[in-house]
Amino acid sequence: MRVVVVGGGAAGITAARTARELGAEVTLITEDDRVAYSPCAIPFVLSGEIEDADSIVMRDPEYYERLGINLRLETRVEEVDPEEGIVETEDETFEFDAAVLAVGGEPLIPPIEGSDLDGVLTVRWFSDIERLERAVQSAERAVVVGAGPIGVEMAHALRSRGLEVTLVEMLDRVLPQLLDGDTAAELQEVMEKEGVRVLLGDPVERIEGDESVEAVVVGGEEIEADLVVMAAGVRPRTELFEAMGASVTPFGVEVDPALRVKSEDGGVMEGVYAAGDCVADWCPITGETVPSQLGTVAVRQGRIAGRNAVEGPKITWPGTLNTAVVCAFGLEAAGCGLTEARAEEVGMEVVSATVSTTTRARYYPGGEEITVKLIADAYTHRIVGAQAVGGERVRERVDAIALAIRLGAKVEDLLSWDYSYSPPVARVVEPFYEAAERLREELKG
Amino acid sequence: MRVVVVGGGAAGITAARTARELGAEVTLITEDDRVAYSPCAIPFVLSGEIEDADSIVMRDPEYYERLGINLRLETRVEEVDPEEGIVETEDETFEFDAAVLAVGGEPLIPPIEGSDLDGVLTVRWFSDIERLERAVQSAERAVVVGAGPIGVEMAHALRSRGLEVTLVEMLDRVLPQLLDGDTAAELQEVMEKEGVRVLLGDPVERIEGDESVEAVVVGGEEIEADLVVMAAGVRPRTELFEAMGASVTPFGVEVDPALRVKSEDGGVMEGVYAAGDCVADWCPITGETVPSQLGTVAVRQGRIAGRNAVEGPKITWPGTLNTAVVCAFGLEAAGCGLTEARAEEVGMEVVSATVSTTTRARYYPGGEEITVKLIADAYTHRIVGAQAVGGERVRERVDAIALAIRLGAKVEDLLSWDYSYSPPVARVVEPFYEAAERLREELKG
Repeated sequence: MRVVVVGGGAAGITAARTARELGAEVTLITEDDRVAYSPCAIPFVLSGEIEDADSIVMRDPEYYERLGINLRLETRVEEVDPEEGIVETEDETFEFDAAVLAVGGEPLIPPIEGSDLDGVLTVRWFSDIERLERAVQSAERAVVVGAGPIGVEMAHALRSRGLEVTLVEMLDRVLPQLLDGDTAAELQEVMEKEGVRVLLGDPVERIEGDESVEAVVVGGEEIEADLVVMAAGVRPRTELFEAMGASVTPFGVEVDPALRVKSEDGGVMEGVYAAGDCVADWCPITGETVPSQLGTVAVRQGRIAGRNAVEGPKITWPGTLNTAVVCAFGLEAAGCGLTEARAEEVGMEVVSATVSTTTRARYYPGGEEITVKLIADAYTHRIVGAQAVGGERVRERVDAIALAIRLGAKVEDLLSWDYSYSPPVARVVEPFYEAAERLREELKG
Repeated sequence: MRVVVVGGGAAGITAARTARELGAEVTLITEDDRVAYSPCAIPFVLSGEIEDADSIVMRDPEYYERLGINLRLETRVEEVDPEEGIVETEDETFEFDAAVLAVGGEPLIPPIEGSDLDGVLTVRWFSDIERLERAVQSAERAVVVGAGPIGVEMAHALRSRGLEVTLVEMLDRVLPQLLDGDTAAELQEVMEKEGVRVLLGDPVERIEGDESVEAVVVGGEEIEADLVVMAAGVRPRTELFEAMGASVTPFGVEVDPALRVKSEDGGVMEGVYAAGDCVADWCPITGETVPSQLGTVAVRQGRIAGRNAVEGPKITWPGTLNTAVVCAFGLEAAGCGLTEARAEEVGMEVVSATVSTTTRARYYPGGEEITVKLIADAYTHRIVGAQAVGGERVRERVDAIALAIRLGAKVEDLLSWDYSYSPPVARVVEPFYEAAERLREELKG
């Protein structure tokens, strides 16, 4: 069984390792000069929280060689022929019985005048770290474009390195995919207290400068800047898929539940799997195609694709609730499923409850503020989303609700929740339980 | 609508407040001289983590009076007549349309020679704090009897106050109701590293001393001690129920799902509810009668009993998984549902997976060790229990699995879990997800 994996990110290496563990002969081809660093760690390297940048590279190439994986670094795949079972690079041809294409994504650079100036940087590649680090050392004023997870975490990193920071988001709130206005306001308040200027509701008009960036124009205002961080999202890399005749959407290549690549004619390409940021995912609540560019999804899809590549299409991917957590400014901000805003866009009538409390018993020192929000379909009573922002113990709370959504939980089910309690780690009433109690009164039908 | 609540603990005050909010005329009668202190906070007062002992009293009596609750402190109820709808104290007679009996429990003192000596103390009443504090200031060597939550937390408190501490447990592990041997060993190792001597597998034979305690005899060994903390469990107070002709078990008074008190003849006593530590609970997995002496249960039952008292039996109690978390020695130890040991006792064939990892990305500083254990019915694949011990982010993980158990989750369902990830707060693979992946291989049927 010969498996060729294209892409050395989290999805690719996980697929390669899984296929190898199941006994396949595995070749892993990547354009990068190292295997699987963690892109989500870059803001924390810049902030100084992670001291050694090299530590974010998961393993040495030798590790993969010891596993018996045939590794090709700095190698570009020119063509994949699914019919013939061939992957072509400039110098070599690899035959495969199954392939896993995990080619990832790249930073989305909005078509803005001046986005090619010196000092306009992205946060994606390992080599970005050195560029960003150099810029941070000389820059005084930064503009971060986009208030998604990377944008917020970079705003924190740059602020903690002493720069003047403006965060620009064209939608009306920070973390607009993850949070609604009320929970986003909790984060924004702390960001502003920490000295970040947050500009919402206007896109960047242009970036000004001679060779290097000098200013960013937003809503008619010229904001001086000697560093611009582009954090406007990730574009899935779909060129290889297009050339293969696969069905490609703006969110990535389409796959069936076994992660087999779909072809333009509606069929599937037997033996050809895709995983990670290049895949168009789907929301299990609405069935809609959604982007999913999370490390967790990459790893979980990599395991499935690697196994299915060896054993045939057996294990299926269940879509994604895009559960994510952002760590910045001493807060965790997390969300899953549909925001209230998104639910309304898809025509769902929802009810929501937002509860603000603290994370420890009133009388136990050190408690932090936490705000949680629970969103449910008003008529079916199904929980469709959860959000939380707070100083501690945030992530796992949202994860619990994400699991409950998977299990089809209704608001009423949360009232049977046997959560635990001890004064140093909780109040006697769990905030998401409290939210469910409040929601119960508002349910319809 | 006249509601009489007997008992001023978490269940009683919650029931009283709920009934009052729904418009009832409410009388709350308690033997104590204050309303609803938090008994689970006492070890943290002794350790010094909570500086002001008075802060653990939830509210002043004036608070309840402002709510319009008729409060009787230091008042003993002599009789409840469910037929006539009357509660009798020494001086007064209260008529009720509905009553909530939340009389709680008291420390179980095993019938051991010497347990009445000076220096043998319990951890339950507010007045215990002063006795314990005085003893801690003069004592040098303490023996804690019982390695349940209070025993472990008291061992931590006494050790952190500089005493020599021996913890004695007649079963073969610490936290035997909450953890199995493998997870309990993680906690025990840290306890011993912190200087606590842990003696397992032998009951206390006797306590020696003239007037004051001088030694505790365990397994033939005489352990010198000038303080003995009895943490052998809580006995539900059932005297009032027995006198009423209610059905009483060693775990408390029996109730129907609406929390109505059952009578000896198998019927229910209309309008008479019970809540909290005095109630015999049931396990939703096995249907068995179990004790449930948790603050969370008291509050949640109090809300139901208070509402049902006013509106009639509408809301039902779903039994308890006895989810609990213990905070001591820098660790959180949590569990829910059945331990593997318990599952085997009830004749269930289970599979389990134990995963040890760290709480943050490998390269992010400050991560703590964590061990999680997932237990499932080998044939139905239903998850029946979860345990975790670690330095941070433990409680909410077990709470998530407790919610999943409530929702009938199978091992396979956890593989669809969209948990979140960011380097400062997690590794990319959630340990309970990893445990589910491992368990999948072992399932039968």
